[in-house]
Amino acid sequence: MKDPAVDKDLLLLGIDGGGTHCRARLSTLAGQILGEAVSGPANLRLGLGASFSSVFEAVGRCLNRSNLPQATLQRTVACLALAGASEPRHLAAAQEQQHPFYKTVVTTDAHAACIGAHGERDGGVIVAGTGTVGWATVNRQTYRVGGWGLPLSDEGSGAWLGGEALRRVLWAWDGRIPWTPLLRALFANFDNDPHAIVEWSAAASPREFGSLTQAVVDHAAHGDAAATELMQLAAVHIDALAARLVNAGAARLALVGGFGPSLKPWLVADTLSHLVEPEGDALDGALQVARSAAAALAQVA
Amino acid sequence: MKDPAVDKDLLLLGIDGGGTHCRARLSTLAGQILGEAVSGPANLRLGLGASFSSVFEAVGRCLNRSNLPQATLQRTVACLALAGASEPRHLAAAQEQQHPFYKTVVTTDAHAACIGAHGERDGGVIVAGTGTVGWATVNRQTYRVGGWGLPLSDEGSGAWLGGEALRRVLWAWDGRIPWTPLLRALFANFDNDPHAIVEWSAAASPREFGSLTQAVVDHAAHGDAAATELMQLAAVHIDALAARLVNAGAARLALVGGFGPSLKPWLVADTLSHLVEPEGDALDGALQVARSAAAALAQVA
Repeated sequence: MKDPAVDKDLLLLGIDGGGTHCRARLSTLAGQILGEAVSGPANLRLGLGASFSSVFEAVGRCLNRSNLPQATLQRTVACLALAGASEPRHLAAAQEQQHPFYKTVVTTDAHAACIGAHGERDGGVIVAGTGTVGWATVNRQTYRVGGWGLPLSDEGSGAWLGGEALRRVLWAWDGRIPWTPLLRALFANFDNDPHAIVEWSAAASPREFGSLTQAVVDHAAHGDAAATELMQLAAVHIDALAARLVNAGAARLALVGGFGPSLKPWLVADTLSHLVEPEGDALDGALQVARSAAAALAQVA
Repeated sequence: MKDPAVDKDLLLLGIDGGGTHCRARLSTLAGQILGEAVSGPANLRLGLGASFSSVFEAVGRCLNRSNLPQATLQRTVACLALAGASEPRHLAAAQEQQHPFYKTVVTTDAHAACIGAHGERDGGVIVAGTGTVGWATVNRQTYRVGGWGLPLSDEGSGAWLGGEALRRVLWAWDGRIPWTPLLRALFANFDNDPHAIVEWSAAASPREFGSLTQAVVDHAAHGDAAATELMQLAAVHIDALAARLVNAGAARLALVGGFGPSLKPWLVADTLSHLVEPEGDALDGALQVARSAAAALAQVA
């Protein structure tokens, strides 16, 4: 059996696994896209089983769409860029997993987003999605800020915003702050029952908290007082991530993730002055990491 | 068998069950204290089994100290004042439990604290312990504010403060804020490993988060910047609970709970102007509720 590392048919797989979606893209070494797919949450904090279930669901769909057999994975170099991989324990568990790929690189979604945004150049990213994390590469040094997960971190993220919004619904119900259209709308989702909010929140996943984000964004656009305060608070946290990366020497910052575009109008001028459009996204970055790994294999061979 | 409700030997049991301790006191109808004891957390949010395990551990110790047999409980009227009983689901579960007592009243720790502080008179309490909750009785109406439990509520509590303090350790580690002696001391507790903080926090109970409170209080007394900010933030939340109860008509407020004395110096003048010394504590209040229940039984008999 010939070594597939030097096989012209070597394929690349990129995985961008966040707290709400897992995206996969399968391509040839030459860059032809063979298949793309999306599945559910793949954050390693949700557990190795849950994360890899989403990863392999997305991979299976990629294969189906490109009419390729499962055995294709044996000649595939994969980069699994997963939220939560910044925790050494989660990273080690993901690396020790039995993988069907020829070669597997596990990294964080933030690292892949940074490579996707800036390629090999210095720069940083702020990933604002279900969670938040900042990442930068400056003079070959990497900097990571935030992204420690709920309940302690991920300030300014969609999940954090959803929790803060529900907190204010309870404050309004208690009589501590005035009701606003946003708070009434959220309360109606829970049949106007504060205890239903408490029960739901005790078990809700980051993705579920994040599902409340759009209502906040929409109401803020209409001047809702609570929604406006929440967007301002989220922006303060995103500005803090940006300031830290700028301070580390990252002059170019890309704001990525599903919540990013909604946050942008609320950021301070200092942050905005450093924002650049990303060249690509985390999936592009994961594919670049896979390509580098494949190139290293070819050199070794 | 005679009806113990009209038995002169009827006893009273008060239980004050919070997120860190459960206190019990057994007394005669005439007020003679037969036994007192303390056990672990009895907040119903920790689960009915965990809560009642602490309750019955404390009750057993009371009996031991007074050399009374288990059968004594059959002639005991008990008031179980438990944190978390403000959730209807938890209250119902606690009421449906098989109790060994002649008569059992289940209520919230906040209600018992209010009765303990003001007796039958109008007034309010702010319970600031592992959790926070405000409670007032004004013109026979009761008002409850806050106390919805973590992660959404209990702002300004010991558990909330512990979490906020650890969040700031991660901010300092990230380079988002300066280190202070408090943050370095907390970090050292986790072997200067941010991942250890993340792992611990994912599983820590409110009691465990609350165990960090004393360090914050101590460092705030020495002007530590992070500790000072944290105490100020906590006080803002306690002031909001107070303002709501004052607005409801509670002119007299008692600040109770283990964290109360440390918080007091940080409260605004408006709050302080309404504070009074409580006549008694939540355990006194629970015994008063038990006494009222016993009196009602005697009247029926």
